[in-house]
Amino acid sequence: MLVFESALRTFTENVFLAMGCSSDHARLATDVLVRAEMRGIDSHGVARLTGYVRLWEKGRINARPQIKVVHEAATTATVDGDAGLGLIVAPFAMQVAIEKAEKYGSGWVSVRNSNHFGIAGYHALMAVEKDMIGFAMTNASPLVSPTFSSERLLGTNPMCYAFPAGKYPPVIVDMATSAAANGKLEIAQRLGKQVPEGWIQDKEGKPVTDPHALKSGGALLPLGSDREHGSHKGFGLSATVDILSAVLSGANYGPWVPPFVAFLEPPDDPVGAGIGHFLGAMRVDGFRPVEEFKNHMDNWIERFKSSKPIDAAQRVVIPGEPEVGAEIDRKVNGIPLLDAVTKDLNDLADKFGITKL
Amino acid sequence: MLVFESALRTFTENVFLAMGCSSDHARLATDVLVRAEMRGIDSHGVARLTGYVRLWEKGRINARPQIKVVHEAATTATVDGDAGLGLIVAPFAMQVAIEKAEKYGSGWVSVRNSNHFGIAGYHALMAVEKDMIGFAMTNASPLVSPTFSSERLLGTNPMCYAFPAGKYPPVIVDMATSAAANGKLEIAQRLGKQVPEGWIQDKEGKPVTDPHALKSGGALLPLGSDREHGSHKGFGLSATVDILSAVLSGANYGPWVPPFVAFLEPPDDPVGAGIGHFLGAMRVDGFRPVEEFKNHMDNWIERFKSSKPIDAAQRVVIPGEPEVGAEIDRKVNGIPLLDAVTKDLNDLADKFGITKL
Repeated sequence: MLVFESALRTFTENVFLAMGCSSDHARLATDVLVRAEMRGIDSHGVARLTGYVRLWEKGRINARPQIKVVHEAATTATVDGDAGLGLIVAPFAMQVAIEKAEKYGSGWVSVRNSNHFGIAGYHALMAVEKDMIGFAMTNASPLVSPTFSSERLLGTNPMCYAFPAGKYPPVIVDMATSAAANGKLEIAQRLGKQVPEGWIQDKEGKPVTDPHALKSGGALLPLGSDREHGSHKGFGLSATVDILSAVLSGANYGPWVPPFVAFLEPPDDPVGAGIGHFLGAMRVDGFRPVEEFKNHMDNWIERFKSSKPIDAAQRVVIPGEPEVGAEIDRKVNGIPLLDAVTKDLNDLADKFGITKL
Repeated sequence: MLVFESALRTFTENVFLAMGCSSDHARLATDVLVRAEMRGIDSHGVARLTGYVRLWEKGRINARPQIKVVHEAATTATVDGDAGLGLIVAPFAMQVAIEKAEKYGSGWVSVRNSNHFGIAGYHALMAVEKDMIGFAMTNASPLVSPTFSSERLLGTNPMCYAFPAGKYPPVIVDMATSAAANGKLEIAQRLGKQVPEGWIQDKEGKPVTDPHALKSGGALLPLGSDREHGSHKGFGLSATVDILSAVLSGANYGPWVPPFVAFLEPPDDPVGAGIGHFLGAMRVDGFRPVEEFKNHMDNWIERFKSSKPIDAAQRVVIPGEPEVGAEIDRKVNGIPLLDAVTKDLNDLADKFGITKL
């Protein structure tokens, strides 16, 4: 099914309103999810809605959170999300970071007691719109094993760095710190295909290519895939995300991070509250005049874009470029939704008595 | 040859003094290099001394730099290294970051007009000693191709994140953003061994295992090795280092970064000054009380250290742990120097008329 942005916004907002969100929160949460759809990151879009609703039904998402700063210095803060939707909590925290950056040049906020925050790029782009460099990361429920271990101790823990440019769109590095994103596994499972070696291991830690291994105690591998190809670096990056997001804020870390799915219970010995995020903003003009920076960003982009390709059919892709392409395409042509997703969403509509898609 | 720390310090200091460095600068530059040796990172230790001397002879390293802050806001600054040794310039910049963090919670410094800064971990640890989280990165002369390109456009661009812990040593993630460090290639070249697929490509961009391919126009690959295993993520991380270190400060970026070796000339169309670094410090107590943070860091470390190993003989390695082991060992047993390195150093001693090792 093809759906247009405005119709999807109306539908999504109605779901959040039915959960009891305030109208401001419903609009913001919708913006984060629909932005993911527009940017072509379907794994983080409206397909997640039913999951959020199930967690809310279990009392693990609070639709009326009192989000607040619980600790701060001039340019740092810890925010407690009161178990709210990460889609709401993360923009609140980024706003705090931006206000500190406006005053002092930079702002850094660690967040506890939150939930899944959608695409990291959304939050980082809030800073870019103010001519700042944006940082966003989050920990996530454990699916990834550290190098040399057969236990799942880390989430796919994404990190995002976003930089404003001049005539080109912003450069946005937005990446899971695992070799492959979980969404890619799910696609292979659905299609009954094998996955490349280096994505996953089975429950004994043996490299395998059957995507179902993940469901029988296996794990995703850190970026780098194996020790020889630098998986200890992927592990180190994932650890960095975990520490900045959770050890620093008082959220759960490592294997204690609560699962994103309602049918799995959170550990009964939590080391903190909810999941954690880390957001930051740095004013470009704290380092050099904005126009100078943007001109050099444009030059950087042009040089990399025009670099000699291995295969003439595939030139170098600037980080963030494919998402801009998707946005242009989907504005004109609409957003393609899988039948399974449309069905789930219309089941939600039935549940809440709202208009179907 | 085995040499003890104090003897190596005296020798190294004499070399820097002979280059005309002030006694404070000679002591500091020595500390950075000898610390690398003690921590077992031989590729970034005294083996680099002859390279620094050759660059100084060519006028590309200034032994008497006037390092200064050229632009700043409350928590941000740009430092011009006046073509000094990165070993001196980076600690100066980190000191600026730390002082800002003491006042405002965080401090961030981008550096231009610098040179090779040794191990990133040295600079990040300066922050850790003050109960801060330390960040250090640097761009470097081009050896790495972006995904889909056969051109060398990026350095091995390391990033380092360092976190204080309680009863355990700090967690230090200090990693090149390429799949393999250049030092590992050099070892394989010396031993006449092949390297694993996924480390390098030849000048057409074809994956190869002959380590000499790098000398005939080939390139190192970004972390992830190929697109299917996430090399676009390694490229994105490397781009992040390049932008924060150089586009933000006014240093050279991408293919314009000057080579570390004196026999290669810098590009004649520079886009900035020297190479760039980026350093940062964030006070832990800007987020939560230091003792609370350290207790949870200890818990994090214990949980990961004790995680189920794939092979009982190899448990999970906490980032920074091997370096601590090396430091203990080398304090007692001395630092092993390769014969080739000892010979180079004693040639330097002859050149400058100082006492040999």
